[in-house]
Amino acid sequence: MIKAGVIGATGYTGVELLRLLAPRPDVELCVVTSRELQGKAVASHFPNLRGHLDLRFAAADSAELKQCDVVFFATPHAVAMYAVRELLEAGVRVIDLSADFRLQDLALWQRWYGVEHACPELVPEAVYGLPEVNREQIRGARLLAVPGCYPTAVQLGFLPLVELGLVATQQLIADAKSGVSGAGRKAQEDLLLCEASESIKAYAVGGHRHHPEICQGLARATSEPIGFTFIPHLTPMIRGILATLYAPLKSAADMTPERLQRIFEDRYASEPFVRVLPAGELPATRAVRGSNKCDISATYLEEARMIVVLSAEDNLVKGASGQAIQNMNLMFGCDETAGLDAIALLP
Amino acid sequence: MIKAGVIGATGYTGVELLRLLAPRPDVELCVVTSRELQGKAVASHFPNLRGHLDLRFAAADSAELKQCDVVFFATPHAVAMYAVRELLEAGVRVIDLSADFRLQDLALWQRWYGVEHACPELVPEAVYGLPEVNREQIRGARLLAVPGCYPTAVQLGFLPLVELGLVATQQLIADAKSGVSGAGRKAQEDLLLCEASESIKAYAVGGHRHHPEICQGLARATSEPIGFTFIPHLTPMIRGILATLYAPLKSAADMTPERLQRIFEDRYASEPFVRVLPAGELPATRAVRGSNKCDISATYLEEARMIVVLSAEDNLVKGASGQAIQNMNLMFGCDETAGLDAIALLP
Amino acid sequence: MIKAGVIGATGYTGVELLRLLAPRPDVELCVVTSRELQGKAVASHFPNLRGHLDLRFAAADSAELKQCDVVFFATPHAVAMYAVRELLEAGVRVIDLSADFRLQDLALWQRWYGVEHACPELVPEAVYGLPEVNREQIRGARLLAVPGCYPTAVQLGFLPLVELGLVATQQLIADAKSGVSGAGRKAQEDLLLCEASESIKAYAVGGHRHHPEICQGLARATSEPIGFTFIPHLTPMIRGILATLYAPLKSAADMTPERLQRIFEDRYASEPFVRVLPAGELPATRAVRGSNKCDISATYLEEARMIVVLSAEDNLVKGASGQAIQNMNLMFGCDETAGLDAIALLP
Amino acid sequence: MIKAGVIGATGYTGVELLRLLAPRPDVELCVVTSRELQGKAVASHFPNLRGHLDLRFAAADSAELKQCDVVFFATPHAVAMYAVRELLEAGVRVIDLSADFRLQDLALWQRWYGVEHACPELVPEAVYGLPEVNREQIRGARLLAVPGCYPTAVQLGFLPLVELGLVATQQLIADAKSGVSGAGRKAQEDLLLCEASESIKAYAVGGHRHHPEICQGLARATSEPIGFTFIPHLTPMIRGILATLYAPLKSAADMTPERLQRIFEDRYASEPFVRVLPAGELPATRAVRGSNKCDISATYLEEARMIVVLSAEDNLVKGASGQAIQNMNLMFGCDETAGLDAIALLP
Repeated sequence: MIKAGVIGATGYTGVELLRLLAPRPDVELCVVTSRELQGKAVASHFPNLRGHLDLRFAAADSAELKQCDVVFFATPHAVAMYAVRELLEAGVRVIDLSADFRLQDLALWQRWYGVEHACPELVPEAVYGLPEVNREQIRGARLLAVPGCYPTAVQLGFLPLVELGLVATQQLIADAKSGVSGAGRKAQEDLLLCEASESIKAYAVGGHRHHPEICQGLARATSEPIGFTFIPHLTPMIRGILATLYAPLKSAADMTPERLQRIFEDRYASEPFVRVLPAGELPATRAVRGSNKCDISATYLEEARMIVVLSAEDNLVKGASGQAIQNMNLMFGCDETAGLDAIALLP
Repeated sequence: MIKAGVIGATGYTGVELLRLLAPRPDVELCVVTSRELQGKAVASHFPNLRGHLDLRFAAADSAELKQCDVVFFATPHAVAMYAVRELLEAGVRVIDLSADFRLQDLALWQRWYGVEHACPELVPEAVYGLPEVNREQIRGARLLAVPGCYPTAVQLGFLPLVELGLVATQQLIADAKSGVSGAGRKAQEDLLLCEASESIKAYAVGGHRHHPEICQGLARATSEPIGFTFIPHLTPMIRGILATLYAPLKSAADMTPERLQRIFEDRYASEPFVRVLPAGELPATRAVRGSNKCDISATYLEEARMIVVLSAEDNLVKGASGQAIQNMNLMFGCDETAGLDAIALLP
Repeated sequence: MIKAGVIGATGYTGVELLRLLAPRPDVELCVVTSRELQGKAVASHFPNLRGHLDLRFAAADSAELKQCDVVFFATPHAVAMYAVRELLEAGVRVIDLSADFRLQDLALWQRWYGVEHACPELVPEAVYGLPEVNREQIRGARLLAVPGCYPTAVQLGFLPLVELGLVATQQLIADAKSGVSGAGRKAQEDLLLCEASESIKAYAVGGHRHHPEICQGLARATSEPIGFTFIPHLTPMIRGILATLYAPLKSAADMTPERLQRIFEDRYASEPFVRVLPAGELPATRAVRGSNKCDISATYLEEARMIVVLSAEDNLVKGASGQAIQNMNLMFGCDETAGLDAIALLP
Repeated sequence: MIKAGVIGATGYTGVELLRLLAPRPDVELCVVTSRELQGKAVASHFPNLRGHLDLRFAAADSAELKQCDVVFFATPHAVAMYAVRELLEAGVRVIDLSADFRLQDLALWQRWYGVEHACPELVPEAVYGLPEVNREQIRGARLLAVPGCYPTAVQLGFLPLVELGLVATQQLIADAKSGVSGAGRKAQEDLLLCEASESIKAYAVGGHRHHPEICQGLARATSEPIGFTFIPHLTPMIRGILATLYAPLKSAADMTPERLQRIFEDRYASEPFVRVLPAGELPATRAVRGSNKCDISATYLEEARMIVVLSAEDNLVKGASGQAIQNMNLMFGCDETAGLDAIALLP
């Protein structure tokens, strides 16, 4: 039995962790914390959990956290870094869904997150939790950094091409569309139904925090320099990310649609959560809603010598809490798919 | 191992049956039929099932159906009645999600469905599959009629009051709001996103087919005459039914909010899928989306001597396919909640 | 040229006033105030107005307000009552979109709004701005109280029946469904897209502030006592109210569908903004989106002796800002439909 | 008084033409045709028009069409080309919202539309109705081809850069997101609310009919060869197109954010319907919903030497019917903005 705690469980990645963990026979949810909701029944805040989870929110510094085998941080950025050390010292393994340990380059981290890192000495040890790249390291991790939602979809789409050196890595573009839950459960004007529904817009056009994370991931896969343009969009739906990826074929490279299809199928042949679609089918976020799958298609546009990859995931599952649990499964020697085999809710 | 078949699995109740049955270790999905899609891979039609179900649609009259232990009809009305007899004779138990065997009064059925019943001799044997009313009979059923989506939400809301004789049964009103999936997967103009989103409307104001079914169910619970007004509404969302029920207190009756709360809590104390909300909380369809739960609240308005019950379900789960499987579980001696304990997807 | 000011123009009724007033050749928008946005360009806050309105938000107590012929209050409740007297004394006519002057019974107002009324001496003078009831009084009003969104739809639906004494006024029920904009532009959790879309719920079941306003309006139309149950619902769409009204026919009364249709057609024959639909057609909020129309149908259910009226409006237009301007037109001797004849945006 | 007819007015561009033309004091809507709905009241089909337009659908070949000054074709592709000649010979000017006369290269047209052109001799005469490029020619047009919805947004976004020779025209990318109304009012499965809401997907990745139209338009603005990748996406909303445009700066070119801003402001300084947003603001489709505006921003990403242009329009207004009327205004010497100055509906 894995004893688990969740810190900051009042947002969307929090409730998604609880939804996925509560039914597990091999996991015991021991403690769920919230600064604001301390003492309140979790099921009153998240009515879907009524009858499934009989816990009250504990204080953020609950002593029970140190009794856990694993603690998840579902906190905003720059929170986990203050609390991780103490937990690790108590023998607890930590899975951080925030950005605190995603970037190895501290100066870069500090530039994008606007604060000094409170725990720089642990950054080198943190393992980047993208199992499709990093599976073996994950198994042994004490401190795991769950990738961001966009970086998951974008890296899974680009990696087969970048790893093989087929595309011009200095001219990569990701045009990504995210459901509104990606912004979290913040009482913020532009996330109101009346503001965000029946409309689409780009944001953070000048630079988004997931840009350096994606560049770091792509750079690990190639020795060529990375030039990357990333434009995220707020899409009028609750869940889902669709990343439309543009990768110009290198001038010297040969390509056919069949070869492209084979490259993707081979790369992900043994991955339980990546589905390379048959040639001619295209992903839609609805086909992965509520599931831990990432659906991918790749198309070769001969005239423009452009490869267009489409990559769809549920931002709260494969893009956050599902991936966190996939990492937990690896870290604790469970079946990698345990608790993650639910089929997407369609329609 | 229960060998199961699904007839007419190309609509929303069909895919929902497959979503709920495919992961079951104790159920084998043997045959899935479709008149139009015969030979096509099920996962190409329902991309959420890719990697979970490796079947092709069989012909509607596939011989394999008779090898099954149970066959579900996810067909439009007036289809099952032609095929049920042969299956029963082959020893197959039948769970019909359509309306063919819901009404015991054949003349009434024929008036509302506009055709002559093809199999009147089996109607008396058919068991009405609302486990909260009928559990024991269901266990022994050969032919099971799954209640309609509206009738499930409305009956579960009214029954505690009607059974105790507390309300004026001649003045009951149900104002019901359904997501668009309730209308099925029909390429019909008024179900287009551009027609059905950002708008709400009533329909079938002069009379809806679920009216007689609800009346039949309420009449079983009381000897008093039933007078019932039912107005369904098309609501701009995919899934969910919210029924707002108005029941005037009988003039002689006494009531307090506390007593009302207790009546509902007692009635459903041992029901695994009905959640009576704590006093002061109100149901929302999002708290049951994708789950087999029905959430209920009851409020007493003293000034108007009116009881207002709110009843929320996922029309495709507790209102259709989930309830069908709950019935299957009872019929085959499984745990009633087997395969139905998933937590609602929120947000 | 009518010189107009708008106080508190940062919410949805505010921007709707500006949208409707800015193109008027006979109205000059002189001053638009906002406590928080003082100094900011209105078009930066409301990007739809860019190129149409070249104003900056002024302070809430701008001296220019007293230079206006008319000032609209698009403020929350309990704001206008502090400022109205001074404006009236300066000769400005006031149109209040908030609830401050809607209820003639001060004790009732104070009970529902939880504060003492700051300006009780002006309440008797305030004219209730429902032109379909009150047109002549409106023309001469100095201080006009714009009806609430729900009260407009509900009264227009019930009045033809109540005025003629046909229905049991002690058993009236309104089941009302409102788009989320009815709650205003508040950064409040339950109005987020992720909370309010793909779900429907009732709220304020124990009592809503529009209940006494509706009762007051119905009571003016009959000498019989009013018993009224009102359940509002938050519907996953931006704009629109659909009120489903249940009125039991009096036991002595005779009714036919034809007579019922005629009653509604006669009542509203000369009303420019009420469309009684042909028999057999039902309203949908999309048919009035962005317009000042209220669409109404009435159906007689013989078996239950129940009349079901459906009444649809855009809550921000006929339910608020459009009606405010309709009142302004009457008060200033303009054509009643001036600036309000835009056709609803469909789809 | 301009006498106008609309052919094929049962779809979304049709109702939008009627919405915009019906209130015009200088336009008389004489005849509105529909093959399927002949004889039916227009307002029964389009309930928003009730009380605004008292016409019945006429036969598709109504003789009244030849009495018109102008006839709009709101028909599917490959319909207008059979009927235009006869109308022109009768002295009627024709505005075609379909694609029949958009492409000057007939072979290309035939490749993309899959039929032989029925009226090739008129193609050279047809004027492409993008007033921001072609205003003078439009005034004298007898036969006007209204640009497609995507081509309008994409060309308006790219043209300032292409005309000045600043960007690598062989590496242009448009990632476009369209509301579902762009697909028309077809009872087609993938346009159902249950299929298209709460999801986003790309489509026509291998090639979309608007690709050659956009290339033709860009080629007119430069002597350099065009290489263009175009990926359209179906977005869960009714109206709106957002085009995210990627244009790599030429290696030799200099650029600053200020210069880029000035280039766009200068290009559109006197255009009534193009709003270049202030630096730092980004378009959203909600700010143009229901209006004839196109909102544009341009951002220079120095590190990647990439210019990202965002261009937002209402696909049914500036992308179709509004632009058609803007063209009519020019052709008939009206004020170019007549009937098109409505402010977008927000929220």
